[in-house]
Amino acid sequence: MTHDIYPTLRVSREDGIARVTLDNPPVNVLDVALMADLRHLLTALRSDGSLRVIVFESANPEFFIAHVDMSLVDTPDAFDEFAADLPDGVNVFQALGELLRHQPQVTIVKLAGTARGGGAEFVTAADMTFAAIGRAGIGQIEALMGIVPGGGGTQYLAGRVGRNRALEAVLGADLFDAETAERYGWVNRAVPADELDGVVDRLARNIAALPEGVIAAAKRAIAPEDLAEGLLREHDAWAASSLAPTPSVSSAADWPTAPRPATASAIWRACSGDCPDSPRPYPARTAPVASLLGRSGAAPARSSRRPHVCGRRETLLVTCPGGGSARLPFLSPRREEQAGRRPTPWWQTRRSTS
Amino acid sequence: MTHDIYPTLRVSREDGIARVTLDNPPVNVLDVALMADLRHLLTALRSDGSLRVIVFESANPEFFIAHVDMSLVDTPDAFDEFAADLPDGVNVFQALGELLRHQPQVTIVKLAGTARGGGAEFVTAADMTFAAIGRAGIGQIEALMGIVPGGGGTQYLAGRVGRNRALEAVLGADLFDAETAERYGWVNRAVPADELDGVVDRLARNIAALPEGVIAAAKRAIAPEDLAEGLLREHDAWAASSLAPTPSVSSAADWPTAPRPATASAIWRACSGDCPDSPRPYPARTAPVASLLGRSGAAPARSSRRPHVCGRRETLLVTCPGGGSARLPFLSPRREEQAGRRPTPWWQTRRSTS
Amino acid sequence: MTHDIYPTLRVSREDGIARVTLDNPPVNVLDVALMADLRHLLTALRSDGSLRVIVFESANPEFFIAHVDMSLVDTPDAFDEFAADLPDGVNVFQALGELLRHQPQVTIVKLAGTARGGGAEFVTAADMTFAAIGRAGIGQIEALMGIVPGGGGTQYLAGRVGRNRALEAVLGADLFDAETAERYGWVNRAVPADELDGVVDRLARNIAALPEGVIAAAKRAIAPEDLAEGLLREHDAWAASSLAPTPSVSSAADWPTAPRPATASAIWRACSGDCPDSPRPYPARTAPVASLLGRSGAAPARSSRRPHVCGRRETLLVTCPGGGSARLPFLSPRREEQAGRRPTPWWQTRRSTS
Repeated sequence: MTHDIYPTLRVSREDGIARVTLDNPPVNVLDVALMADLRHLLTALRSDGSLRVIVFESANPEFFIAHVDMSLVDTPDAFDEFAADLPDGVNVFQALGELLRHQPQVTIVKLAGTARGGGAEFVTAADMTFAAIGRAGIGQIEALMGIVPGGGGTQYLAGRVGRNRALEAVLGADLFDAETAERYGWVNRAVPADELDGVVDRLARNIAALPEGVIAAAKRAIAPEDLAEGLLREHDAWAASSLAPTPSVSSAADWPTAPRPATASAIWRACSGDCPDSPRPYPARTAPVASLLGRSGAAPARSSRRPHVCGRRETLLVTCPGGGSARLPFLSPRREEQAGRRPTPWWQTRRSTS
Repeated sequence: MTHDIYPTLRVSREDGIARVTLDNPPVNVLDVALMADLRHLLTALRSDGSLRVIVFESANPEFFIAHVDMSLVDTPDAFDEFAADLPDGVNVFQALGELLRHQPQVTIVKLAGTARGGGAEFVTAADMTFAAIGRAGIGQIEALMGIVPGGGGTQYLAGRVGRNRALEAVLGADLFDAETAERYGWVNRAVPADELDGVVDRLARNIAALPEGVIAAAKRAIAPEDLAEGLLREHDAWAASSLAPTPSVSSAADWPTAPRPATASAIWRACSGDCPDSPRPYPARTAPVASLLGRSGAAPARSSRRPHVCGRRETLLVTCPGGGSARLPFLSPRREEQAGRRPTPWWQTRRSTS
Repeated sequence: MTHDIYPTLRVSREDGIARVTLDNPPVNVLDVALMADLRHLLTALRSDGSLRVIVFESANPEFFIAHVDMSLVDTPDAFDEFAADLPDGVNVFQALGELLRHQPQVTIVKLAGTARGGGAEFVTAADMTFAAIGRAGIGQIEALMGIVPGGGGTQYLAGRVGRNRALEAVLGADLFDAETAERYGWVNRAVPADELDGVVDRLARNIAALPEGVIAAAKRAIAPEDLAEGLLREHDAWAASSLAPTPSVSSAADWPTAPRPATASAIWRACSGDCPDSPRPYPARTAPVASLLGRSGAAPARSSRRPHVCGRRETLLVTCPGGGSARLPFLSPRREEQAGRRPTPWWQTRRSTS
């Protein structure tokens, strides 16, 4: 059974197990559509008493979730919906992680490809993760863009691997292979790639077959830690970093008017005005930012002479205030990255998938 | 030196080290006798200032502690004794774990066989555990019986391995081998089976030979975490699950009067009235349950038309209210389980040791 | 560039990275000079906004920091300086650890040799540690001297490896090799010895090249845990153990007047009066102890008939109250220890480096 109401998800269900296949081509970017579908699905399933286990996997063999889509900011309406019933004390990205972390069903991620940035946060928020040796990769790569994870990732990760290794992961911004992720405690276990389906399937079936009440009892006894304080700290740190102008974008070196180049991230969040590729101009510069942050006071006052940016999947179109534009490739993934090597920073890559 | 006052234990002592061998044939079930002996021994040793280390091992090469004995409920008097001086906020099973966790001496488990259920909880409550590669197995297998660990296991385990792996262990209900248990942090270290004695012996002797005051200082500096809130949550979750009728007991499919079959666990805790094999009828249905729970308000009102159950080591005799009876094998262990494979749920096994 | 103002350190700096080489021959003992230099350097660097990463390594290929120097007590003035601006609730050793743990820059230890006692505490207080396989060793070996770690080590260690493994490390007092330290979570990662420089260098450069604000944001989001309560508990445990007379110093068996021999540690801390080798008599017995403890009430009243002790690097000169003296070798390191074997207790060694 497929729920066509979730365009980016394929959902099948059998024996108390929902299998959710993320299918948001080309690389399962965590964009507004996918975020909204995940949110709606998890919310709908919460009250389903006959459902016991939710298994997440990807339709893309290389990527579980490539990263958060920078084009999120193109559709502020979606964030308005998110923001409308945002729980107190979390931003829209954290809200998705917290929703998943507090799901009454057992949530299991089958990680056969790469999960980066917001994708890694989603993985880490789930109850369990099993990772395919030689194929899986997980990384909080936000630092390369001048920000820190802002969707709960710093707190989820520190809880799993401790402060020292969390700092390494967040600041090193490397992709961790399955074995290293297991050794660090980031995933439950690394398993041979050809056994991943069997291992997760068997575990899901065993759990789904448990006598009634056991899952609820286990989740009650081993309750999610209250991370309110840490999430607020993370949000403040993330917002502060994401709104600061940052150097070292070499491909924007010819920036005409800005005193120093900025990362795509900083540009994106600070963007305002019309964008040639966008179906609709931003109503106001602060709207998407405020909506995104989910907290009124957090949107800073900023000069309107900021460059305009329009994001498209793997490319960012940057329109400079003084005229002209540049297309910046964004996090273009390479096959080699899955071997555990450092992801190429987006500003050094040239391949574009859009 | 053997203390004959502990029928299920062999205790020798030398150079500040007590070696406690669990010897409760056939499979070291954690029954009332073993629980009482452990409790009395630990209590007696607490005030022994010349004792520094307690090493626990098993007389049975296959089992450290096979599981909690379901026949516990046959001897409510023992629980009355336990309950009489039960610390506030814990049930009788948690009280044993907390007693061990707060022992002033250093407690070390030499795990050369299998520890399941209440046995795994005992292991996890100790200060340190060393596990024999190829022989040791540890598992919280309560979920297979429709309950969650109720003797501190969920809290001890989450503290050692984190929430994600604790959920996997409790809900997957698998037996973990020595290496996996080490990788998860469940035991201190996996060691070659033929080195286990030497490793633990050397460590115990080294610690026992430390200058006076060091052990107390280390235990003060690295104090046991206060788990009061978690233990209460665990108890509530355990009690709720253990008292709920549960499906999927295939061998009780011919149950005559109950609307749906129940796990042995649920039956056992709810049982009342006379039992043909028991030397003594239960004075009242709620007595053992209330005693077991150790908290007055927790015993639910239940229909007296519940089936009667008498537990005997590896078998449960179930007497149905409408007449007739059935003998259900319980957690009959198989040799293969020690290789790390999933323990066969009790309702699918046929071997009986009684 | 070398800062000659730090006699025990070589400091070079490049591209936002400070490389601090500990160079306090012969074995990088953590003595007053090294402690003072580290403290002054870290304090000076705190306000340096252009510095992003601090890498610590050792000029000695065998030792990162061999141990805390017992001769610390010979220079009470240094502790007066430390004590003058000691933060509330910590002793002078904890103050160094806390200073490092709260450094705004990213601190990375390149562990290619042995770090013991106070040296292990320093390593564990840093943000990250990478350890050379076959060369690195780390151990909290204080227990062999009759004390527990008193510079934050118990709390830092328990936070990294959990209570069970922390108790093993502190009471077993063994040296952990790189792989075991990684498996326990004591260090971030064990790497082949010939790759250590490259791994740390690459990580340091990557982090130093991150856009501005990211390090501060990550450190804010993944903040150091508040250990105030645990540090106080550790201090009390350490002070209690360090001031208690302890047995089992075989080489002091001919002690003339004391009812039982004491460890060098206990002697050292309780020492008073003149010392033949010291350039200056202690002004009063309690002065260094009180200064060391950093808390007024903690210095106990003690008999002035205590033996006198003067520490020199690898040797302790013990002057007995009734006349005569003995030179006790202290923690003389052996080459074999680096292979992960138990460090020889100081009272069983004979080699002296002074």
